[in-house]
Amino acid sequence: MRVLVTGAGGFIGTTLVRLLQEAGHVAGRPIQALAAADMQLGSAGAGLLALEGDLGSAEMLQRIADFAPQVCFHLAAVPGGAAEADPLLSRRVNLDATLDLFQVLAEAAKVRQERPPVVVYASTIAVYGSPLPDPVTPASPTRPPMTYGAHKLACEIMLAESTRRGLLDGRSLRLPGIVARPRVPSGLVSAFMSDLLHAVAAGEQFTCPVSAQATAWWMSARRCAQNLVHAAAMDVALDSQGQVGRAWPLPVLRLSIAEVVQALSRVYDVDGAQLVRYSPQPGIEAVFGRYPALDDSAARLLGMRDDGSPEALVRRALDPRYEEPQ
Amino acid sequence: MRVLVTGAGGFIGTTLVRLLQEAGHVAGRPIQALAAADMQLGSAGAGLLALEGDLGSAEMLQRIADFAPQVCFHLAAVPGGAAEADPLLSRRVNLDATLDLFQVLAEAAKVRQERPPVVVYASTIAVYGSPLPDPVTPASPTRPPMTYGAHKLACEIMLAESTRRGLLDGRSLRLPGIVARPRVPSGLVSAFMSDLLHAVAAGEQFTCPVSAQATAWWMSARRCAQNLVHAAAMDVALDSQGQVGRAWPLPVLRLSIAEVVQALSRVYDVDGAQLVRYSPQPGIEAVFGRYPALDDSAARLLGMRDDGSPEALVRRALDPRYEEPQ
Repeated sequence: MRVLVTGAGGFIGTTLVRLLQEAGHVAGRPIQALAAADMQLGSAGAGLLALEGDLGSAEMLQRIADFAPQVCFHLAAVPGGAAEADPLLSRRVNLDATLDLFQVLAEAAKVRQERPPVVVYASTIAVYGSPLPDPVTPASPTRPPMTYGAHKLACEIMLAESTRRGLLDGRSLRLPGIVARPRVPSGLVSAFMSDLLHAVAAGEQFTCPVSAQATAWWMSARRCAQNLVHAAAMDVALDSQGQVGRAWPLPVLRLSIAEVVQALSRVYDVDGAQLVRYSPQPGIEAVFGRYPALDDSAARLLGMRDDGSPEALVRRALDPRYEEPQ
Repeated sequence: MRVLVTGAGGFIGTTLVRLLQEAGHVAGRPIQALAAADMQLGSAGAGLLALEGDLGSAEMLQRIADFAPQVCFHLAAVPGGAAEADPLLSRRVNLDATLDLFQVLAEAAKVRQERPPVVVYASTIAVYGSPLPDPVTPASPTRPPMTYGAHKLACEIMLAESTRRGLLDGRSLRLPGIVARPRVPSGLVSAFMSDLLHAVAAGEQFTCPVSAQATAWWMSARRCAQNLVHAAAMDVALDSQGQVGRAWPLPVLRLSIAEVVQALSRVYDVDGAQLVRYSPQPGIEAVFGRYPALDDSAARLLGMRDDGSPEALVRRALDPRYEEPQ
C-alpha cells in the first residue's frame, strides 16, 4: 500500500506518521511506501519519502501523481486564525490546492487502472454554526462562522462528489479541538486548550481565557490519529450518514475546563484549582466555551472512539509513552 | 446604480436583462449603467455595456473590476448535463471563476469605498439530495447528487462567507426547472419540461419521457427574473434563513405533467390528452418526476412568488406579451 500524509510536519501529522510507521499497515494491508508532504518536514521526514514544498505547486502535484497514493490522509491546511486573517491564502491552500490534490489523486489511480484512492480528509467542527445548535446532530445545518470552516465544508462537498463519481473513496472527519499541541504559536484560537494541559501538568500557573464552566469537545492527538487510520479502513456505503454524505464528526469527550483541571490534578498530582486563574474573554468564551451535546453515534457505530475518560485524555495527550489499556 | 448580469445571453439572462431595461431601476434606485457578460451576447447585448468573453479570464475580470457593479446577478454557469459530462470545465466555470468573480466584486467596491455589492446568485434545487427528502424544508440536509449541484452549493457557502465578512451582500436563490426554454439543445436534462410546453401549445404531438403523474416544481422565466430582481431589493438580516445562510429555494408551483397539459389545453384550446404520449424513462422519472412538497415559506415571507396558477405559468412562460394581472 502506498500511503501519503499531507501536513505531515504538523501536530496531528507527526503523530499520525509515527502511528503508521509503528503499525506498518493500514486497512489490513502492509504499507510498502509512506510519503510525507509539508512545507517543512524537519525530522518528521526521516525514513519516509519526503515531499517538501507548497502543496498547490505544479511540482508538488507532479511528485504526488508519480507516487500515486492508494491512501491519502489530507491534513495540510492554513489553520483557523491564520485563515481568518488571510482569506486569500486560505482559498489557495484550504480550497484550491485541496481540490487540485483530489484531482491528482483520482487521475493517478485512473492512469494505473487502480481502485479509487481512499482519502481521509481532516475537516473540522467549525463547519457548524456559531452558536452551535444544541444538540449537534447529523441533521444540524452547517453554517460555518469562519473562513476556515467555509473552505473545509466546500472541500467536504467536493470530496463527497468525487466519491459519488467513483473517482475517490472519501471520508471526511470533523475534528474537534485536539490536544496537546506544542507550546508554540499555531495560529489557532483554540491553542489555549493545549496550553492549559501543558501548564497544569507541569505545575505552572495558567491564566485561562474562558471560565471554569466553559465546556468544549476534547480529543488527544493520538486518539485522533487512531481514528484517522480507522477511517481509512472502515467499510462505508456510498450514501452513508453525514450532512453532505461521507462526513462525520469524531466522537468526543464533552468536558468543562474544571473537569479537565481535575483530571490533570489527579494524574499529575498537582493542585489545579490553585494553579488556574480564570479571566474569561467574551469572544473566546462564546466560541470555545459553549459546546453543546454532540450526536456522534454514526461515527461510533463505524468504530471511531473518544479518549474514554478525562484521565486517559490528559495522559494520552501529554505522555508519548502512555500505555494504552488493553 | 451600476448593474451587471452574467450569463446575460442565456435563457433566464435575456429575460432578466429585458426586465431590468423595462423597469429602469433596481432596489428602488435608477439603473445608471447596465452591463451584460457572456461568452456570446448577440442581440442580448444591444443598448448595454457588452462584456463578451470567458468569465474566468483575467481580461474579463479586469473589465468587471473597472465597471465595479453595485448589484450583480450571477447566472453564468455550465448547465447540469454539461457539467456532469465535463466536471473539470464545471470546476473552472461554476466554481473557480465564480469565486474569482466574488473576489473581484468585493475588491472593486473596497477600492471605491462603496458598500458591499449585492450579489444575487442563481443556485439550484440540485443542491438537495436525490431522492429528495419529503418534504424539503430549510433544515433538509444538502447532498447534491450531481457535479453541477455540488459546485453551486460550494459557491453558496462561499457567498454566505463573503457576506459574513462584510465583503459582499449575497442572496442565493435555489432555482427550480424554469420554462419555457427555446427549443434548442441546452445541455439540461430538464429541457423536456420546456419542450412539452412548446409542443402542446402549438398543437404538436409530444413524447413525454416521464409519466402523466410525474410531479415537478415549475416556474416561468419571467417570474424567475422578477424574483431575482426582488431578491436584490429585499431587506434581509445577515443570519437569515437557509441551509447555509442567505440561501432560499424559490417558491414553486408543484404540478404533475397531467396538470400542466390540462392548463395548456385550456389556455391554447388544444386537446393535450390526445397530443401527449407517455414513454417514461426510469432515470428521468426518478430525478424529474418525484418532487415532494417544498417548504418555501421563508422565500414567500421575503416577498418572492410563484406563478400563481398553472394557467398563468404556461401563459407567462410562452407569451412574451402576456399582461400580468394587476
